[in-house]
Amino acid sequence: MLLPKGYRFAGVHCGLRAAEPGRLDLALVVSDTPAAAAGVFTQNRVAAAPVHVCKERLPRPDARGFVVCSGNANACTGDQGLADARRMAELAAAGVGCKPEQMLVASTGVIGRLLPMAVFEAGIPAAGRQLGADSAHFVAAATAILTTDTRTKTASRQLGPHVVAGFAKGAAMIGPNMATMLGFVLTDAAVPAEVLQDVLRRAAADTFNCISVEGHTSTNDTVLVLANGRGPALTGDTLHQFDAAVANVCADLARAIAADAEGADHLVTIDVEGCRTDADARRVAKTIAESALVKTAVFGADPNWGRFVSAAGYSGVEFAESDLSLWMGPFELYRAGAPLPFDAKAASAYLKDNREVYLRLKFTLGPGKCRFYTSDLTTEYVRLNADYTT
Amino acid sequence: MLLPKGYRFAGVHCGLRAAEPGRLDLALVVSDTPAAAAGVFTQNRVAAAPVHVCKERLPRPDARGFVVCSGNANACTGDQGLADARRMAELAAAGVGCKPEQMLVASTGVIGRLLPMAVFEAGIPAAGRQLGADSAHFVAAATAILTTDTRTKTASRQLGPHVVAGFAKGAAMIGPNMATMLGFVLTDAAVPAEVLQDVLRRAAADTFNCISVEGHTSTNDTVLVLANGRGPALTGDTLHQFDAAVANVCADLARAIAADAEGADHLVTIDVEGCRTDADARRVAKTIAESALVKTAVFGADPNWGRFVSAAGYSGVEFAESDLSLWMGPFELYRAGAPLPFDAKAASAYLKDNREVYLRLKFTLGPGKCRFYTSDLTTEYVRLNADYTT
Repeated sequence: MLLPKGYRFAGVHCGLRAAEPGRLDLALVVSDTPAAAAGVFTQNRVAAAPVHVCKERLPRPDARGFVVCSGNANACTGDQGLADARRMAELAAAGVGCKPEQMLVASTGVIGRLLPMAVFEAGIPAAGRQLGADSAHFVAAATAILTTDTRTKTASRQLGPHVVAGFAKGAAMIGPNMATMLGFVLTDAAVPAEVLQDVLRRAAADTFNCISVEGHTSTNDTVLVLANGRGPALTGDTLHQFDAAVANVCADLARAIAADAEGADHLVTIDVEGCRTDADARRVAKTIAESALVKTAVFGADPNWGRFVSAAGYSGVEFAESDLSLWMGPFELYRAGAPLPFDAKAASAYLKDNREVYLRLKFTLGPGKCRFYTSDLTTEYVRLNADYTT
Repeated sequence: MLLPKGYRFAGVHCGLRAAEPGRLDLALVVSDTPAAAAGVFTQNRVAAAPVHVCKERLPRPDARGFVVCSGNANACTGDQGLADARRMAELAAAGVGCKPEQMLVASTGVIGRLLPMAVFEAGIPAAGRQLGADSAHFVAAATAILTTDTRTKTASRQLGPHVVAGFAKGAAMIGPNMATMLGFVLTDAAVPAEVLQDVLRRAAADTFNCISVEGHTSTNDTVLVLANGRGPALTGDTLHQFDAAVANVCADLARAIAADAEGADHLVTIDVEGCRTDADARRVAKTIAESALVKTAVFGADPNWGRFVSAAGYSGVEFAESDLSLWMGPFELYRAGAPLPFDAKAASAYLKDNREVYLRLKFTLGPGKCRFYTSDLTTEYVRLNADYTT
């Protein structure tokens, strides 16, 4: 896969996941030269220690990389957790030979447990000795951040002489604003940190903030972007293309997260259009996406469309029933507030036979629209989440 | 059970549930004399036809009763649905010999299907011929409104010479404000309709609006209260006691709904205290109650308390982590923003061995508090809801 120049990657087993000896649990990414860096973070009031540390340090013009552990969220861990997150960054910075504040940090895993710092004292320097610039090292880093994910999630786009590449994790506790998700986007283009911050904020709004597994906003959500390009900064059309490239990489990663949702049988794309504003459309889509009744209906291939309409109805967006029409895949089910006759058997088969299914809600109120991704709710999801820490 | 004077009840099979010949599917309740009546209804923008009809007619001083069908929600049914709801009330009124607008109407069941009106043309008059004032008839009416409920839900309280009694249904699509729930409260005390409206609104706020199964607000939620007492209206202390009696009957019914949630293994009581306002406390409790991750953890007897704290964090209520402490049953897990050591095996056994479990969140921000009921999320819930209409 295409990778940007000037970055090296490592994914190692440092021992945080002591019960799983072979499993990668630490990722380290280093830029050979100082890089502009920006981030967007969880909106949860209970933010993990590494989120606080990154927020203090970003945006900045001279980041050198980030270190990420999986298996422990370092959230709800008080002052000790903050000290531990800083120490992780410090250990990574020592290996690179930069200042601690040039290094960023993220964690994902169980909440409320202190990090076993001893494993990092040896493990982070060891990771520093295994850095490499090729795809194998990139994929190792992308693998080391996974928790209950079943696949690595990577994406990249070419942009003239430059590349924008990213990797992410996330499979549950995925609520928009954002998910229990970590995402990392790297480019060798030259983009000032403040511009990078705006580009990332826009990209995340339409991608990572438009996916939901169960609407539970994590304490650890972090998306970082690094741009280590030298020479003149992108401007005008080129910046516009960069914007699109970052958005596309984020969209690929977001979609991959929704598709890999814990226990999911279906990826559900919800298109809402004709609302007064995009925010209204997103609110409708998000409410449908997070309804357990919608999600179990999709799982059971039950074309029980009243659940979609009634979810729209409690989204908080004002509308009259006559403003709304609804399609499920090729089936028009509801037009301007009245039910249409439809072939229930064929509609059920549509849900049964397709792993990717589409809902479309069309209002007559304005130009606002949103595309939102979610998964179905399966017995397997319940089984996985009923027994996570014990 | 204690019943108020001057009411008669019927629960019959009228044929709406054609596939289940013996199953009761129509309830009729009649007051022998005109009764003050009030109601509270779903806040869903997509409200069912019978909700619109009741809202037009309430509050009023001269209601004579209500007719309820189960198996079809008469929601998302357009103008035909409205005409059908009015016709149901008209048929019931004809049997009683009152004006159509003195009769109220409710429905629950599948959304988006037109009512098979032919079954009511014969079935509602037939129900009118089977009215009776005893407990057996009351229970038949309470049974006829059930959908996926596993038990009838009734409650009553004595109030001096008077009685307040009620029955309800609801097992899923239970989001507060309110649930797919129907509730009916009857008394032989004398209370003007406007006072009755206030009493019911207050009672519902602390009871039916403090339960959630999956947060999906139904199109059909309706709670009606009738007071057919003659003589002087309640005032002062007696009115205050009446207020409490209605609240207690509503609380019993609300708790019974949460306990009977589809597929539920646990009834979860969430006490939130120390918030700035009661509304803030309710918002925190509701967010925890509706988190699939919280609910699966309870199902799996997994004391993964980070899920409780992180749900509070995305509730939208402002707090610092150091403002919050958390108990699960007898276990203190989190104090002023830092984790406490605890016996994970014993905490898991607490969840495993008790069908009723308690979460308590204590903030240090003010006097606001809320008690909220929910259920766990089980593989059985998913199975039940994956195959409802097909």
